[in-house]
Amino acid sequence: MKIRMDRIERDFFNMTEFGRLDNGGVTRLAFSEADLRARGYLRHSMEAAGLEVMVDAAGNIRGRRAGRESLSAVLMGSHLDTVPNGGHYDGVIGVLAALEVTRVMDEQRIRTRRPVEVVNFSAEESSRFGVATLGSKALIGDLKKDDIDRLMDEEGISLGSALSKAGFSFEDLASIRLQKGDIHAYLELHIEQGPVLENAGIPVGIVTAIAAPTRIKVIVRGRADHSGTTPMNMRRDALAAASEIVLGLERIAGRESGEHTVGTIGYLRVAPGVMNVVPELVELGIDLRDIDGGEKRRATARVLDLMNEIADRRNVEIDREILTDDEPVPMSGKIIDHLKKTAKDADIPYLTLPSGAGHDVMNLARITDAGMIFIPSIHGISHNIAEKSRMEDIRQGTELLLRAIVALADER
Amino acid sequence: MKIRMDRIERDFFNMTEFGRLDNGGVTRLAFSEADLRARGYLRHSMEAAGLEVMVDAAGNIRGRRAGRESLSAVLMGSHLDTVPNGGHYDGVIGVLAALEVTRVMDEQRIRTRRPVEVVNFSAEESSRFGVATLGSKALIGDLKKDDIDRLMDEEGISLGSALSKAGFSFEDLASIRLQKGDIHAYLELHIEQGPVLENAGIPVGIVTAIAAPTRIKVIVRGRADHSGTTPMNMRRDALAAASEIVLGLERIAGRESGEHTVGTIGYLRVAPGVMNVVPELVELGIDLRDIDGGEKRRATARVLDLMNEIADRRNVEIDREILTDDEPVPMSGKIIDHLKKTAKDADIPYLTLPSGAGHDVMNLARITDAGMIFIPSIHGISHNIAEKSRMEDIRQGTELLLRAIVALADER
Repeated sequence: MKIRMDRIERDFFNMTEFGRLDNGGVTRLAFSEADLRARGYLRHSMEAAGLEVMVDAAGNIRGRRAGRESLSAVLMGSHLDTVPNGGHYDGVIGVLAALEVTRVMDEQRIRTRRPVEVVNFSAEESSRFGVATLGSKALIGDLKKDDIDRLMDEEGISLGSALSKAGFSFEDLASIRLQKGDIHAYLELHIEQGPVLENAGIPVGIVTAIAAPTRIKVIVRGRADHSGTTPMNMRRDALAAASEIVLGLERIAGRESGEHTVGTIGYLRVAPGVMNVVPELVELGIDLRDIDGGEKRRATARVLDLMNEIADRRNVEIDREILTDDEPVPMSGKIIDHLKKTAKDADIPYLTLPSGAGHDVMNLARITDAGMIFIPSIHGISHNIAEKSRMEDIRQGTELLLRAIVALADER
Repeated sequence: MKIRMDRIERDFFNMTEFGRLDNGGVTRLAFSEADLRARGYLRHSMEAAGLEVMVDAAGNIRGRRAGRESLSAVLMGSHLDTVPNGGHYDGVIGVLAALEVTRVMDEQRIRTRRPVEVVNFSAEESSRFGVATLGSKALIGDLKKDDIDRLMDEEGISLGSALSKAGFSFEDLASIRLQKGDIHAYLELHIEQGPVLENAGIPVGIVTAIAAPTRIKVIVRGRADHSGTTPMNMRRDALAAASEIVLGLERIAGRESGEHTVGTIGYLRVAPGVMNVVPELVELGIDLRDIDGGEKRRATARVLDLMNEIADRRNVEIDREILTDDEPVPMSGKIIDHLKKTAKDADIPYLTLPSGAGHDVMNLARITDAGMIFIPSIHGISHNIAEKSRMEDIRQGTELLLRAIVALADER
């Protein structure tokens, strides 16, 4: 079945124009002018591909290709919105690949038992309203009327006004909620945003589970002292204590936990923060992820124990506040097996791997068999103007998506 | 010989009014309105005590009590300027103690062979012009006409204009330079600004040497990666590398170097500094001090070796720039012995200890026998509104200063 990369490349090239920055990157925040223009282009392209387009109360765009029987549909898609100063591949490739899948099905005159839908989910990135995957949350009933009024962007515009301004009838939000059984399966193709496939030289990843973050805000309180006049053994140095937390987390996540545990301290701020004063206060943020809830809980417990031990030994206070503690989301075993078999049949090399980042598929997995296909990110970079994937990898990922979707859409 | 604490307390109380803040602290930057008023009060008090007052081209105030013979003088003093939001004891106590010494000498009808001078050095704190001990630097020829034009405060006012505005004839700067032999000895009483005397419960410290800082600016360059999608073994985490430097410096200064080596990383900044990105860049500042130049050089070399090892092992770049690398200044052995003997004779308990902070005595030590007396800082705190010393400790320190000065001033 012949994927036409020229069509994907044309769509991709056109899409890069919406919100393109002078530095080559893109800023296409959810429901911004750039996002609305990208959505317009997608609707137009869906209609040109013969899909029946529906836009729901949360702004999710669904383009349907009819099935032979009156059965629930299989969905595939991703998102068009981006982070500020982001790249052109994250999300976009998944939507465009899904669109191409329907075009190839038409050309091949494939008539499936079930309908097939291409979906663009609204506001997948948390950049504008502080919460991620808003569109797919709305579809499973996880975004309420209250949230719509409460969530604000940096300029004080609520999600509700942004939706209204864009012409979406968010009053009907409750009506779009899907229940188990309403859709037959969901597949999402996405860039890996990490270095695993690239380092292995493999074009396709089959995602086993979405790791969920546990996020802890930590405040270490020591004592400010003169850097010249305070003997080393009389100090209560908040930065030295914090440095033990940094290295302890690295050791626990890297060597003392599961294969897929990752732990990061991405920000760390020191007060008073001047050359000649022993640090009094350090604030830092721990981001701990795993696809195995048990492993993540054990790693979290070890980090908390370590902080207790450091606080006692160094005579500092260490306060912690757990900001997020989500459960990892396993992908459907049926879909994983189906993707593996399909890849083998098509001679597409693959790895199975976890997703460290969150995606719309996390929400869909609550109501249907859901799975995810990764393609390599060059240098593992994303959310950055340097984000890039090879067209050949996109082709192989789209090929796998096409074959998997056709088979799922023919299931009884 | 009877120190009158009521007189010191009255002077101290009056001095607290110049630049006093609503929170109880003080901001009395060099040559500010508050500093000029404090200087006016000092001149008035010196004249009331019968001293002959001279103000030099750098604004240093010297009040002289005549000697019996035509010999070089012994000097004692400190400074009246403060850091912003500072305390009332740093510097001030040394000037007021010296003034009280001359009053007691008068009451006791002590006529010494040599003249005795009380000195207030200009701009000891670096807070306004970025360089410390400006007044005593000028006295030993270390402050040049060029510096006077070049040094600026935050508002763009040069040291020269500040001196002019305050009425000092800085054109004569070269003329005030002292040579070896021009003064017979210098003693400075000062708060410790550290916890050693307080923790030992000892009222007086005899300073053995002034530790000098080596300051190194360090930049660690790793790679920014997604915190969820980058396996632990594929990271180049700049903060983890920096944390090893923090703990390595603590170990080297605390356990692997001399008794008086101290090492501090007071500031550390992380970029991009967000929860979900592995840190790409860390900038930090190392402040390493010792009273032994050899020990300090060995500790510095170990820290540099450690950074090389970390850079290689973690595949990060570590750039360093040595900002300052001063030699420690030993106090005069003759003065140390003299202070010890005097303290013993007067039954004043003492410790010998290094000074981790810099003081005007560093400059005076270049041209004469110089020494320093510390009194305890409660909780070791200084440069802070919580800075405080006990009046009883000030009394004992002043007693030692009086006895030591009288004996030095009687030397042939």
